[in-house]
Amino acid sequence: MNINQNYLALQDSYLFSLVTQKVNAFKEQNPTKEVIRLGIGDVTLPLAPAVVEAMHKAVAEQGEKSTFKGYGEEQGYEFLRQTISNYYAKKNVTLSNTEIFISDGAKSDIGNILDIFDINNTVLVPDPVYPVYVDTNIMAGRTIIYSNGTEENSFLPLPDENTKADIIYLCSPNNPTGAVYNKEQLESWVSYALQHDAVILFDSAYEAFVQDESLPTSIYQIEGAEKCAIEFCSLSKTAGFTGTRCGYTVVPHALVKDNTSLNKLWLRRQTTKFNGVPYIIQKGAEAVFSDDGLKQIQENISYYMENAKLISETLKELNIWHVGGENSPYIWLKCPDNMNSWDYFDYLLENAQVVGTPGAGFGSNGEGFFRLSAFGDRVNVVEAMKRLRNLK
Amino acid sequence: MNINQNYLALQDSYLFSLVTQKVNAFKEQNPTKEVIRLGIGDVTLPLAPAVVEAMHKAVAEQGEKSTFKGYGEEQGYEFLRQTISNYYAKKNVTLSNTEIFISDGAKSDIGNILDIFDINNTVLVPDPVYPVYVDTNIMAGRTIIYSNGTEENSFLPLPDENTKADIIYLCSPNNPTGAVYNKEQLESWVSYALQHDAVILFDSAYEAFVQDESLPTSIYQIEGAEKCAIEFCSLSKTAGFTGTRCGYTVVPHALVKDNTSLNKLWLRRQTTKFNGVPYIIQKGAEAVFSDDGLKQIQENISYYMENAKLISETLKELNIWHVGGENSPYIWLKCPDNMNSWDYFDYLLENAQVVGTPGAGFGSNGEGFFRLSAFGDRVNVVEAMKRLRNLK
Repeated sequence: MNINQNYLALQDSYLFSLVTQKVNAFKEQNPTKEVIRLGIGDVTLPLAPAVVEAMHKAVAEQGEKSTFKGYGEEQGYEFLRQTISNYYAKKNVTLSNTEIFISDGAKSDIGNILDIFDINNTVLVPDPVYPVYVDTNIMAGRTIIYSNGTEENSFLPLPDENTKADIIYLCSPNNPTGAVYNKEQLESWVSYALQHDAVILFDSAYEAFVQDESLPTSIYQIEGAEKCAIEFCSLSKTAGFTGTRCGYTVVPHALVKDNTSLNKLWLRRQTTKFNGVPYIIQKGAEAVFSDDGLKQIQENISYYMENAKLISETLKELNIWHVGGENSPYIWLKCPDNMNSWDYFDYLLENAQVVGTPGAGFGSNGEGFFRLSAFGDRVNVVEAMKRLRNLK
Repeated sequence: MNINQNYLALQDSYLFSLVTQKVNAFKEQNPTKEVIRLGIGDVTLPLAPAVVEAMHKAVAEQGEKSTFKGYGEEQGYEFLRQTISNYYAKKNVTLSNTEIFISDGAKSDIGNILDIFDINNTVLVPDPVYPVYVDTNIMAGRTIIYSNGTEENSFLPLPDENTKADIIYLCSPNNPTGAVYNKEQLESWVSYALQHDAVILFDSAYEAFVQDESLPTSIYQIEGAEKCAIEFCSLSKTAGFTGTRCGYTVVPHALVKDNTSLNKLWLRRQTTKFNGVPYIIQKGAEAVFSDDGLKQIQENISYYMENAKLISETLKELNIWHVGGENSPYIWLKCPDNMNSWDYFDYLLENAQVVGTPGAGFGSNGEGFFRLSAFGDRVNVVEAMKRLRNLK
């Protein structure tokens, strides 16, 4: 009996545990000082009333024999897939219901999708980025190469024609940088993928935060993407579902690789290794896209985006270089005075009692940068920005 | 770009679609005849009132800022892991909370656990069995060997010392046969696994149906199992969670293979590729194990077991060989007059309008056998048995 040796090549992520450890140590030494956390990537506003109402109704249905629902289709209820298809129609993207797979969140599907690809494919991952892209491929033993996000390209790397990649991760709006690709930039990625017979795994988990209507919120707004891209989205940030768990993955019928429909492969994977999202949760997810639901979640998104604006304006005032915050809940700043990420973390904690996330935790290009999140309380964001200004 | 070629070696499962197709064709030709379905493996009774109440409360909490829950630990809330640890204590099995992982159901974890094992391990799968064990290993390209369930061993195959297996699937009470291993039989499997450095994947999804208190309901009731076994369980059948989705997987700290803790590997897998079960669902699952919850689900299980008894008694009366039905919701019968599985299916449909599941769909040893399920309505079960007796 042997274990999967690739797991031994994984690096333990100490990022968030080290943050917690440092904050706790500081609080112990400074019990009277109030620490403000702008490091978390989790939402804080509750579920929308329309969602709560729909889930109460679904819970009641599950308690009555005449309305009880047992196994549903692994890929999700028709009512929810149709609702999401309608949501895409508003983006001028036409999808059939069988191209939409309901999931328990983008994280699961982004990891599990790798099942359907050969182990010998080369994977291109942006740096800095959400660490899950890298770890899931290390687990499978794939070769990973990186596309570099830098201050020069505003953390929006473009394809390099001299690099051969089979699987390409893109995340826009990006986590952690908050940078968003425009149409022309995404066109260059789609063009590269089509030319090199590659598949783009497009993570659009933060699409609902895009305010600038000229920016794409789905890869399928780019011509030809249906032949080279899979899209992952989630209600985690869109509708505060981080603890409620629902997302969706789009695998177009036109996406054929190695003479095989990837839609059929993914359906086979999901029907074999997944049993669908709870009926109650799918009813809650459907309500997100109702008229009331959309209005209510928009209020929450506006609240977070107002936080982001406060942060971004303060950084401008202080002449601190940054991206994000305009079409994303994340702000990615360059640590002042050439501090490295952890030095700046310590500096902010000690001098302003503000906690953020060191950029080095998201890849080597993150060194010297720092992530602030707009998911906190307004009153805390205002106070944190006041403290930053007083540091000057 | 290449796909995972192993997927092309999968056989499409036509079992349930062919059943549906044949039933629909029959109904079209015989619109006045009432067909009774005893083929389904899904529950029909609604969720217990204690579960419904707990989920209403949790939904309300998710709608209020002060009680809202975002991301939880991927391995599940402490409250639920403690509750399940207490449930195991009643079985005289001591587990720490960190040995318990909350999942969205046994199907996901039984497939996903394979991530942590080497591709070159040899897998031993009972035949007949739940098809997911075979398909998930074909997807990974592992060598599969079979242990044969037959009329002679009452569909409870024992280890063969001349066979070398690294990963061993056991399902007790078994799906589809309803056969249950006794303590001595499980001891022989644990002994084999310890001697051959193998890991047992023990599927106990039907444990709550065991009525005979001398029969094990957890592999950890066998001495030494904590050094060689992972256990998968689910609330799907126990508490009618097929559409509500919650289960749990036990990976003991004592389970060390290849000098590596499998508990640590599985934790790494889950924290990287899973984001936990919805808070609302975990609160519902917790309520299953409350005093009221346990009493209420026991009423449902008794209802199903009374159905099973009616079926089993009828088969005895008709001198039809069968196993199961006493400690399991499934009854596995030998098709009369040496009919094969599909011929018997057609015969029952045409002459009694009773639908079951052809055993051949669960492996080659299932040929000539047939599965009946006790998950139907009492009135339908009574009527179906009346029809079987009239066939004589």
